Amino acid sequence: MNTRMIARILGTVLLCLSALLLLPLLTGVIYGEPITGFVVTIILSAVLGFGLRMLKPNRTDIYAKEGLVCVGLSWVLMSMLGALPFVISGDIPFYIDAVFETCSGFTTTGASILTNVELMSRSCLFWRCFTHWIGGMGVLVFVMAVLPMSESHAMHIMRAEVPGPTVGKLVPRAKQTARILYCIYFGFTVAETILLMLGGLSFYDSLLHAFGTAGTGGFSTRAASVGAFDSAYVEMVIAGFLILYGMNFNLYYFVMIGKVKEALKSEELHWYITLIIGCTAAVAVGITKMYGGFATALRHAFFNVMTIMSTAGFGTQDFTQWPGYIQVILVLLMLIGACAGSTGGGLKVSRVILLFKTAAADVKKVVHPRTVQRVSMDGKRVSAETTHAIYTFFALYIMLLFFCTLVVSLDGYDYTTNFTAALSCISNIGPGLSLVGPTGNFAIFSTLSKLTLTVTMLLGRLEIYAVLILFIPSTWQKR
Amino acid sequence: MNTRMIARILGTVLLCLSALLLLPLLTGVIYGEPITGFVVTIILSAVLGFGLRMLKPNRTDIYAKEGLVCVGLSWVLMSMLGALPFVISGDIPFYIDAVFETCSGFTTTGASILTNVELMSRSCLFWRCFTHWIGGMGVLVFVMAVLPMSESHAMHIMRAEVPGPTVGKLVPRAKQTARILYCIYFGFTVAETILLMLGGLSFYDSLLHAFGTAGTGGFSTRAASVGAFDSAYVEMVIAGFLILYGMNFNLYYFVMIGKVKEALKSEELHWYITLIIGCTAAVAVGITKMYGGFATALRHAFFNVMTIMSTAGFGTQDFTQWPGYIQVILVLLMLIGACAGSTGGGLKVSRVILLFKTAAADVKKVVHPRTVQRVSMDGKRVSAETTHAIYTFFALYIMLLFFCTLVVSLDGYDYTTNFTAALSCISNIGPGLSLVGPTGNFAIFSTLSKLTLTVTMLLGRLEIYAVLILFIPSTWQKR
Repeated sequence: MNTRMIARILGTVLLCLSALLLLPLLTGVIYGEPITGFVVTIILSAVLGFGLRMLKPNRTDIYAKEGLVCVGLSWVLMSMLGALPFVISGDIPFYIDAVFETCSGFTTTGASILTNVELMSRSCLFWRCFTHWIGGMGVLVFVMAVLPMSESHAMHIMRAEVPGPTVGKLVPRAKQTARILYCIYFGFTVAETILLMLGGLSFYDSLLHAFGTAGTGGFSTRAASVGAFDSAYVEMVIAGFLILYGMNFNLYYFVMIGKVKEALKSEELHWYITLIIGCTAAVAVGITKMYGGFATALRHAFFNVMTIMSTAGFGTQDFTQWPGYIQVILVLLMLIGACAGSTGGGLKVSRVILLFKTAAADVKKVVHPRTVQRVSMDGKRVSAETTHAIYTFFALYIMLLFFCTLVVSLDGYDYTTNFTAALSCISNIGPGLSLVGPTGNFAIFSTLSKLTLTVTMLLGRLEIYAVLILFIPSTWQKR
Repeated sequence: MNTRMIARILGTVLLCLSALLLLPLLTGVIYGEPITGFVVTIILSAVLGFGLRMLKPNRTDIYAKEGLVCVGLSWVLMSMLGALPFVISGDIPFYIDAVFETCSGFTTTGASILTNVELMSRSCLFWRCFTHWIGGMGVLVFVMAVLPMSESHAMHIMRAEVPGPTVGKLVPRAKQTARILYCIYFGFTVAETILLMLGGLSFYDSLLHAFGTAGTGGFSTRAASVGAFDSAYVEMVIAGFLILYGMNFNLYYFVMIGKVKEALKSEELHWYITLIIGCTAAVAVGITKMYGGFATALRHAFFNVMTIMSTAGFGTQDFTQWPGYIQVILVLLMLIGACAGSTGGGLKVSRVILLFKTAAADVKKVVHPRTVQRVSMDGKRVSAETTHAIYTFFALYIMLLFFCTLVVSLDGYDYTTNFTAALSCISNIGPGLSLVGPTGNFAIFSTLSKLTLTVTMLLGRLEIYAVLILFIPSTWQKR
């Protein structure tokens, strides 16, 4: 393994982190808050970053394995360093809690150990929401977009950090692709901030909610989350943008270059929209009586289906009080998640489609053993390697989900709390059911559970391999 | 599809059912109870059986597909007809309830809609427990063992009815294999009955609990299940036999022919025993305080781990009151189940081992893309087809589990009740957690849920394909 080259890339990531921390620092200056935490972290990241970059690599080539290790270690380092401002400012005194919160931010999970977020300083609150924006599109994709990097490096990193069963480059060069993706991302964020301001929110609230929406993270500036504004307009703006952020970003590029028809043909898009409409309708019917009318029920159903399916996890209503079948629908949406190539988490809609298609083909093979069963998507045949990889991913996802559930259960809470806390973290949602529902939080868990859930969030965001590889001894063995 | 040949085999199965019903009829005569229900069902099954056997097939050849359809339809017919005595006697007045109970019996699930089983007539109670014994080893395997059948028929049927990823014939002829299996089964049942009688139970109670143990079913003659006897001896006898019935029956044959070493080498056996010891210890530690001592805790831990892992589901203690992590262990044991080729349900230990090994090999392939990763079991290489089939089975299992959970959730109960009711039925356990725990029962569910759970039990017992094939339109299309 090319350790020096990995160190060099990690150094660049830390320099980037140090630069990104200037924004919350600026916020602190504006609001006249103590900024020691940010200053210390910026200096520490910069020193470490320069230090790592001092190691001159003998070879510059990296392979898939190095790409995965780079991404995995970057996210671990970022969570560990990004947690420091919370500890130093005293907003989150316990370091493990701060790492949980920061990792929850970067992985765009939005699960929180804070019982009242409104007590936090404005600069730390800014940093907390800003981690969603950074993590949504990926830090290494950002590094790739703004700094010089060879094409082969870029491709391996992109594969490891962008979610989905396959990564398609939009343009021949990965670097250009990353730039286009970030431009769309930036544009959407600006648009949402303006629209939220038009709804009466302050610039600060608008921007921070735009960050949380962009990354489909779910951290809010209010203890009651989006519900605090009690505004149908605000909810519709956020839910609308969640639809957009939950879609494959490649589709926007197709629209930009005039290939609208091709974009609209995407099977994943069709199922994504179908699921949103179907689940919203099914939920609305069940809560009409509770909210005294179909219109209000529809508003709450739509917002909450979108916030769960996009894996943001903003809260407006306590859906743990909704009828039993809605809880199961929400659990299934948590498992499915958003589209591949979006900023959302979960298994991804396209993986679930392929899982069904592959299983159906395998069942048909039992009925008609002599006919050849092919799996296709968007009119193209899917290779046996891809379908097998989807099975592998699904099996690993379920195994890790149950492993995390088991560890968390040592704290003694009920089965639904344990299972949905683990599911919520691996799918990067935020809230779960029972004690970790929209009105609950993750402060109830022990240190062991918090650490396990933190690793689970990383496993989910980086789609397992980039994190799992760090735990495999042979990764670190010299050839 | 060779419909006439299928009809002929179904006819034979019904004749067999009619013969098996003579035993509860005899019980009714002995205890002086009304026997109309049994007489009517015996006549009806016999007439239908002879009628179906009147259809003379043009060809006698059947293939894998016909084998599956035969097995699937047999089990549906048996559950539908076997339910009649309960309805006619008035013990279970509602037909759907009776079908649920009968199917729960044949599939060796042991989930019940009865709130007080002690109100039932002794003949019906006998029939209820006897269905476990019949279903444990499989009705068609029984037909195969006692009636003439061509070798190719026998093999296809055996593959469809005997649980596990692969079916190994013990001797060159499937018919002989079936006879050997039934002899072991019969011997164990006699031995357990005698041992239970030595513990002070009546012949009736001993025999019926031996039936429930043999099929790893879990129906009891008492409302408080095995807990009613409050005897450590009885619990240890039952748990001991559950260990035996949860093992692959092929191992007994190896022992019989002197290949003890080969039998002891089985990886599945090692993991099965490891899981039993490990889980018993983990559970015992957690309940020591509750029961005021480690010895009592160990007794309850061992019995309940065995009853869940073997998928029997007898009850002695209300484990829904045990600490949270134990609930998760029990859920995992429900999912894993017993060994392949045993009378137990669940995914099967060998499938779970292969699932882990395959996933591990696939992960290693990501780290070392150029090396070949092989999966082996018991020192033999496992083919790519087998590992792929295990992934397919796992994916289908989880999908069907969640589908059933969703339907059941329409009744409005909590998430744990819905999920564990579905899990308990697909893995053929009996009890679940929350409202369907050892002290609860399935009477709380609507007719739709009961029907769905009934189909789910069949899907679990027949390992999905033999039931799923009945719902696929192309199965019924003429070539």
